[in-house]
Amino acid sequence: MDTENRTETLEAQVKAFFDSAPPLHNSHEITQKLNQFIQRNSSSSENGEARRIVCVTSGGTTAPLEQRCVRYVDNFSSGHRGATSTEYFLKAGYAVIFLYRRGSFQPFCRSLPEDPLLECFEPTNDLNIQVRKDYSKAVKSAIVDHHIAVAGGHLLKLPFSTIFEYLQMLQIIGTSTRCIGPRAMFYLAAAVSDYYVPWKDMVEHKIQSGSHLLDVKLVQVPKMLSVLRKDWAPLAFCVSFKLETDSSILLNKANAALERYKMHAVVANELSTRKEQVLVTTGVEKITVRRDNSESANDVEKPLIKLLSERHATYIEDSSR
Amino acid sequence: MDTENRTETLEAQVKAFFDSAPPLHNSHEITQKLNQFIQRNSSSSENGEARRIVCVTSGGTTAPLEQRCVRYVDNFSSGHRGATSTEYFLKAGYAVIFLYRRGSFQPFCRSLPEDPLLECFEPTNDLNIQVRKDYSKAVKSAIVDHHIAVAGGHLLKLPFSTIFEYLQMLQIIGTSTRCIGPRAMFYLAAAVSDYYVPWKDMVEHKIQSGSHLLDVKLVQVPKMLSVLRKDWAPLAFCVSFKLETDSSILLNKANAALERYKMHAVVANELSTRKEQVLVTTGVEKITVRRDNSESANDVEKPLIKLLSERHATYIEDSSR
Repeated sequence: MDTENRTETLEAQVKAFFDSAPPLHNSHEITQKLNQFIQRNSSSSENGEARRIVCVTSGGTTAPLEQRCVRYVDNFSSGHRGATSTEYFLKAGYAVIFLYRRGSFQPFCRSLPEDPLLECFEPTNDLNIQVRKDYSKAVKSAIVDHHIAVAGGHLLKLPFSTIFEYLQMLQIIGTSTRCIGPRAMFYLAAAVSDYYVPWKDMVEHKIQSGSHLLDVKLVQVPKMLSVLRKDWAPLAFCVSFKLETDSSILLNKANAALERYKMHAVVANELSTRKEQVLVTTGVEKITVRRDNSESANDVEKPLIKLLSERHATYIEDSSR
Repeated sequence: MDTENRTETLEAQVKAFFDSAPPLHNSHEITQKLNQFIQRNSSSSENGEARRIVCVTSGGTTAPLEQRCVRYVDNFSSGHRGATSTEYFLKAGYAVIFLYRRGSFQPFCRSLPEDPLLECFEPTNDLNIQVRKDYSKAVKSAIVDHHIAVAGGHLLKLPFSTIFEYLQMLQIIGTSTRCIGPRAMFYLAAAVSDYYVPWKDMVEHKIQSGSHLLDVKLVQVPKMLSVLRKDWAPLAFCVSFKLETDSSILLNKANAALERYKMHAVVANELSTRKEQVLVTTGVEKITVRRDNSESANDVEKPLIKLLSERHATYIEDSSR
């Protein structure tokens, strides 16, 4: 297939995807919130410079198998990477649009147990409540830091569940950030479904369990990274992720993604070592980023966000020449 | 197919399922916890009677599509029914084994927002934390009531994610409760996968997304309700659930389940009205249970648990004759 044909095919696939998607609930409200957030953070701050804005996507998307959804195909992703990165982006002075899967990890809460309310608090003798001693520092900083980011207007949280919601919202965010050009970054850490069942092909009711075999046929989700780069936010700095369980094919897949979707950087990570190290490829560079075990806050995201923030700064400078 | 052949087939299916399942993590610890819990609640209490014990299953199970699981098929279920019912079972004097999907609703927490720690608390001026006024009553009673149930030894919580974990744990619970005979109840509110990919048929690594179509072939999960009734806990009082989105087939499906799996009661509910009313069928009776809107705590689970607790009491009496 030559390039022109492939482009036509992609455009048709994208159109089919959005045409078939169920309308996004409260899209008007989301657009309004976004515009306010971008405007607020684009006016000059204390130090005379406008904030850079990053959209961090986080957690896995679902692909429903039924319109009145009982069953769906899901992608495993705790959202730990996205939540942690959001904290470091905020520390680096970014405003963050956190596009996250409902129920996945939230920024500032990753050192807490799964069910923090029931695990971290206990009744007092007079049937009041108090924080358990072991968690007192973690709970306090989670609530305070989160509050400062949200109330300060630097963190906007937008939840999704399905692949339809995710891509519709990414489109809105993309087009909303066009006005700030290269000052926008997309940090696409969400685990997005590769396959889906087009809405119109779905059965309305719950699939009946009569037969011994269930054969589910899914079609490929159009490669929206290309569309984000080309149409939605052509000037933004774009970073995507490649996760594999098989390290032998990882770098090739990351390089292929870089070229195919015209990303500015691809972060390659292997499932079993992803909290220790990642490999950032930019086409000209190939940088292994490791977490620094000599520090107390030793996340691999700390040096990763530092690197990407520097590359983004250079990119903005180059764009203004 | 005649009955004998069907039984043989089921036995073979069950064997194949458990033989192929990945070994349950910490099964020894779970068994120990269970035995202690059952023993503690089986000795006579204050009023001279041993507590009845109910196993409430809650939330949906996942069916992994890959051994190093990135993708899986999931069943929608918030776990609201199971969590709410657990509260009413505890109030009715039962000890509850709460077998729940990780991340699903927890007893005593259903009136709280999705992310209670970040939503219900706020920093004070001196950077300490406090409960937001609107949530003060709900947060306090969630923590206190939950603590009383767990610390009092009447609530044992066991989490699962996959269909393999769920059925392995249900088997352990079933065989562990045999010793209390008819005093055990199974209240099977979890949304269990009807289909799964046998572990040995799964690819080890992440499915590659090269091709335009993904064809996922799943086989039926063996009907374990029959095995629970026949082998694991033959004297226990068993209640299963039937959820459909299509009300026209609901009652027939519920009656079929009652007969096929030899349940003592089947609770039939339709997706859109399930919080308002359910239909309980026992073969001889067909009772519509509606929530009482004149009360303040107006859950449909309140009259439902009352009804089932009464039927269970009668069942215990009949068994001792």
